[in-house]
Amino acid sequence: MGWALEQDMGPLQAFLNERPSLVCISFGEVGRPAALARESGVLTAMQIGNAQDLQRAQDADIDIIICRGGEGGGHGRNEAGTLALLQLAVNATDKPVVAAGGIGTARGVAAALAGGAQAVWVGTRFITAAEASGHARFKDAVNAAGLDDTVYTRAFDIAQQLPWAPEFGGRALANEFSRRWAGDLSGLEEHADGALRERMKQARADADPQIAPVYAGQAAAFSIRVQPAAQIMEELCGFRELLADAARRFA
Amino acid sequence: MGWALEQDMGPLQAFLNERPSLVCISFGEVGRPAALARESGVLTAMQIGNAQDLQRAQDADIDIIICRGGEGGGHGRNEAGTLALLQLAVNATDKPVVAAGGIGTARGVAAALAGGAQAVWVGTRFITAAEASGHARFKDAVNAAGLDDTVYTRAFDIAQQLPWAPEFGGRALANEFSRRWAGDLSGLEEHADGALRERMKQARADADPQIAPVYAGQAAAFSIRVQPAAQIMEELCGFRELLADAARRFA
Repeated sequence: MGWALEQDMGPLQAFLNERPSLVCISFGEVGRPAALARESGVLTAMQIGNAQDLQRAQDADIDIIICRGGEGGGHGRNEAGTLALLQLAVNATDKPVVAAGGIGTARGVAAALAGGAQAVWVGTRFITAAEASGHARFKDAVNAAGLDDTVYTRAFDIAQQLPWAPEFGGRALANEFSRRWAGDLSGLEEHADGALRERMKQARADADPQIAPVYAGQAAAFSIRVQPAAQIMEELCGFRELLADAARRFA
Repeated sequence: MGWALEQDMGPLQAFLNERPSLVCISFGEVGRPAALARESGVLTAMQIGNAQDLQRAQDADIDIIICRGGEGGGHGRNEAGTLALLQLAVNATDKPVVAAGGIGTARGVAAALAGGAQAVWVGTRFITAAEASGHARFKDAVNAAGLDDTVYTRAFDIAQQLPWAPEFGGRALANEFSRRWAGDLSGLEEHADGALRERMKQARADADPQIAPVYAGQAAAFSIRVQPAAQIMEELCGFRELLADAARRFA
């Protein structure tokens, strides 16, 4: 998280000391962290959410560009769609481009690869994998959610007093808490105190999906039951056949 | 426009009397208009912007589903991304599905078709076609715009006192007017009177891109000069080769 590294590069240095293959640096100033990673011989990736981010990634000579559209779960921008970002990045750079946000089926994978992505980042589908460490009640909530059931908001960050910059809200399942506050962030800011922070912490500990943030993207629509990760992978790998079909149909 | 037909089906009937091949009915209650079109033997299409819209289209037995993500220009919802909507619709229906919103290059077309679309709707690229009737100053503004230069807002509708339902804002180029008002719609509502309506009308007549709405989607990033429509089509048709390439790479 670039905004945290601006204060203290220590955590990044500690990570690099472990000789990882890749470090993903996003959400803020990435020039210095990227230079440090490069000195350590570690590949860098960066999530981009708009054209300015792409420019920042190019200026920092980032190795792998992750186009993360506003459809994605968790923190990021809610500006450009995955498909538009992907077209922009693939035309602008020779670096490998990864597509992320709203991809949850073999069709989504096929689309991203046909659009020029070298790889695809699928997050939300794996939240409900049997192997995922989240609470069963959170998995159930994601499985029950449809395309219209996520919300992009800063409400959960404000309630927990997390120092994310305002341009990086998060997409989560809409719940009682977000319905109460997502439309009244200034009211929430007045209301946000130690007691509310404790209440959010407790809701996370209790795995209460109506109060706690359950981060998930629009691909929540495609998670319908708990499945082994291998089975989700097998489904997603249907992209090969879909690409071959599309190439035949439009030859 | 479904919300207008709720008051008066006359315009639709007059259109159907001309024996068109297809009528596109969106933005509101579509059941009665779709039934009327069907009685006249005319195919129906509907733009969907979320899962509820898809259900409404299926209930009304619409013939062609247009998945229009929030990336698109002009009026519609700003909820789901094109890619997520497309995956949802293709998996839910056997009707032909058209992808719209944020598609402005051959890579975008290839992505949509690989994702299961039967066809692709490209609007914004053709705004700046040599043959398009818009004013040269508006075309120049779209050509100058990048991915970060559009805004989804109701400000232009409020200023012009147009009766679009609040869930259907519009995506347009960000300009002086939207920068002043998009963040303060209730202030604009107080300010919206006959004089402002006249001012907007005059700005449209004068082709002033800083005041008038210039509707364009995120694909504005891909329009960089005025070109003949045939040349834009030729570029977009590069999708065939891209699909063949992707099928080979991931065989």
